[in-house]
Amino acid sequence: MQIQLDRLQHSVLTLAQIGATPEGGVSRLALSDADKEGRDLLVRWMRATGLEVTIDTMGNIFGRRHGTDQDAAILLIGSHIDSVKEGGKFDGALGVLSALEVVRTLNDQQRQTRHPIEVVAFTNEEGVRFPPAMLASGVMAGHFTLDYAYSRTDTQGKRFGEELARIGYRGSRPCTPRHFHAYIEMHVEQGPVLITEGYPIGVVEGVLGISWSTITILGERDHAGPTPMAMRHDALVAAAQIVLAVRNLATTFGGDMVTTVGTLDVEPNMINVIPGRVVLSVNIRDWYDEKIRQALTMLKEEAARIAKTEGVHIEVDNYWHIAPTHFSPEIVAAVERSCQKRGCQYRKIVSGAGHDANYLNHVTRTGMIFVPSIGGKSHCPEENTAWEDIEKGANVLLQTVLDLAEA
Amino acid sequence: MQIQLDRLQHSVLTLAQIGATPEGGVSRLALSDADKEGRDLLVRWMRATGLEVTIDTMGNIFGRRHGTDQDAAILLIGSHIDSVKEGGKFDGALGVLSALEVVRTLNDQQRQTRHPIEVVAFTNEEGVRFPPAMLASGVMAGHFTLDYAYSRTDTQGKRFGEELARIGYRGSRPCTPRHFHAYIEMHVEQGPVLITEGYPIGVVEGVLGISWSTITILGERDHAGPTPMAMRHDALVAAAQIVLAVRNLATTFGGDMVTTVGTLDVEPNMINVIPGRVVLSVNIRDWYDEKIRQALTMLKEEAARIAKTEGVHIEVDNYWHIAPTHFSPEIVAAVERSCQKRGCQYRKIVSGAGHDANYLNHVTRTGMIFVPSIGGKSHCPEENTAWEDIEKGANVLLQTVLDLAEA
Repeated sequence: MQIQLDRLQHSVLTLAQIGATPEGGVSRLALSDADKEGRDLLVRWMRATGLEVTIDTMGNIFGRRHGTDQDAAILLIGSHIDSVKEGGKFDGALGVLSALEVVRTLNDQQRQTRHPIEVVAFTNEEGVRFPPAMLASGVMAGHFTLDYAYSRTDTQGKRFGEELARIGYRGSRPCTPRHFHAYIEMHVEQGPVLITEGYPIGVVEGVLGISWSTITILGERDHAGPTPMAMRHDALVAAAQIVLAVRNLATTFGGDMVTTVGTLDVEPNMINVIPGRVVLSVNIRDWYDEKIRQALTMLKEEAARIAKTEGVHIEVDNYWHIAPTHFSPEIVAAVERSCQKRGCQYRKIVSGAGHDANYLNHVTRTGMIFVPSIGGKSHCPEENTAWEDIEKGANVLLQTVLDLAEA
Repeated sequence: MQIQLDRLQHSVLTLAQIGATPEGGVSRLALSDADKEGRDLLVRWMRATGLEVTIDTMGNIFGRRHGTDQDAAILLIGSHIDSVKEGGKFDGALGVLSALEVVRTLNDQQRQTRHPIEVVAFTNEEGVRFPPAMLASGVMAGHFTLDYAYSRTDTQGKRFGEELARIGYRGSRPCTPRHFHAYIEMHVEQGPVLITEGYPIGVVEGVLGISWSTITILGERDHAGPTPMAMRHDALVAAAQIVLAVRNLATTFGGDMVTTVGTLDVEPNMINVIPGRVVLSVNIRDWYDEKIRQALTMLKEEAARIAKTEGVHIEVDNYWHIAPTHFSPEIVAAVERSCQKRGCQYRKIVSGAGHDANYLNHVTRTGMIFVPSIGGKSHCPEENTAWEDIEKGANVLLQTVLDLAEA
């Protein structure tokens, strides 16, 4: 049994016209008019595919294909259709539409399954308009309350709950875990590993843990002309050493660790003034929580050393930490077996980015299938994946569904 | 013969009330209402001191005390009374009011001099409202044309020429060099050298040359999660190495060299995105032009090396260069002799900051007298100098005037 690539391609390119940007990407922020239009199209497609559509209180859309055993647990497959601002065509949408294509293929073949299958599109995965990210899957997992989610506001002060009602997607079904069999999400990798190493499929073992810190460096703001070098306490010179120390953490700890300083702000940021204050962000990710904690300890020690040498004050505020997500070994094994059955080259991979699958992993057995991102690019108009890789990914999803839903 | 500290102190504190800020500093931007009020007060004081006041086309204020020989060259003494935004009480004002105090002292003692003496307050030395700095002394030295100066605009689009007329200080005397004997400017050091080493007086040998560059680093903007370290081209990691390389230039070349990265801007400056672009400023100052050029060459070599290692593109744009100003050896020697005559501890010093004296040095024999800045602070409300040091500085100025004006 094979999915129909031309039908999947048509679905992806049709949805991509909603919120399309001149650069060839997509802006379909959560609960925007474009999001509503995309949702309406998806619901029409689901109904045309014979799915029973329900919407929950967080606006998550479920399209149910009944199983032969109505009491059997639900096999959930999907992703999200909201995008970042000026994002790409594939992030999220590919997972939802591949899931829909899997159901269309089962219908074509008139294949019944014991377990019911539900195609899902989660609301506000990106969290760009309404932070934090993965808000609706977070509510389902009990990580956020519904009140918390409804009270999130965008930069114009509009509230999530009201915007959800405005676009007509504030449903009545409670956003809580039901009797789930498993959750499988297909997604673009968003990194360069598969494309560089030449694998069409990544069998995702989980998501790296993340630690976010703010480092504030207080030096002495002085005139850059008359202050001799030996009398300076330059916050930016100290910050530069921190930036390199952060990079060195990944080198030191190795493995999957990635470390990044993404933001750095200098005060007063004037050409003629020695920087008096620098605030920068530190982003440490690893597959092992213990390694993240060790790296953070090492960074604090390094910061103390730099503070002493440069005569500045350095404060490290580790304000957010999320443990690594290790997906269900059964589901990871099931995806791996599907690759083997389909004769697909694959590699096991860990995700550096978060997904709804992170929270779903707390609710049911969860796994993900990655397809390669050309140039490792995502969240930009250039985001792209070869159609032949998409075909392979969707067939691996189909195979996994066939195996798990017990044909 | 001694200046009267209480009278000088009263003048400084009275002028400091005009444009006074709640923090104890002064905001008296060039050609503002506060500047007009300060000018009016200065002109009243000059007239009360028996000086003949003229204003030139750039608004420079001259108060002339006639000499016994009307054909003798003019001994010019002064500084400026405009301030930066939220600056201090002393920068500029001290030089003008000490010059006025010198004349008041000569009057008290009924001391005639052969050379006429003119107290001067130059317009827009700071250049904060109307860049560039030292605009009026620059016109006098022929470095800028009058049309150029008049067409400078502030952030509200108001033009220098019109604002000068509005406050009533667009005079008729041409802003050109006259028959000058010498120019002596007393000023706060604005750095920590004198205060740290315990000298009340700095005999200024000149002003460091300055080279300003913009360095633009283009890397690859990628998601900070899924992009392995080995596949990154992080513009900020390269920038951090540039910041440290800039600091190392001063260590390598030694002497008076000071090197600073004052501004650094990261794009997109998001915690979750590997920086794709960084723009930073490089400010190199030294007493020898050749050393500045060598440092710049070394920095470019280092930038090329970093670009290669990090796989980024680095562009160095050296957009502004001003040669060091070496003051007249005769005037430097005259100031030094005055210190010795007055029994003042002093040290020779070079100025890291620019002054009207830079441009005047092209017009006539020029020198400066520095007094210590407490904590090395300037351009801020905390800017301060001990009154006993001010007294010493003004007496050195008086002595230098007595010697040069030939009593």
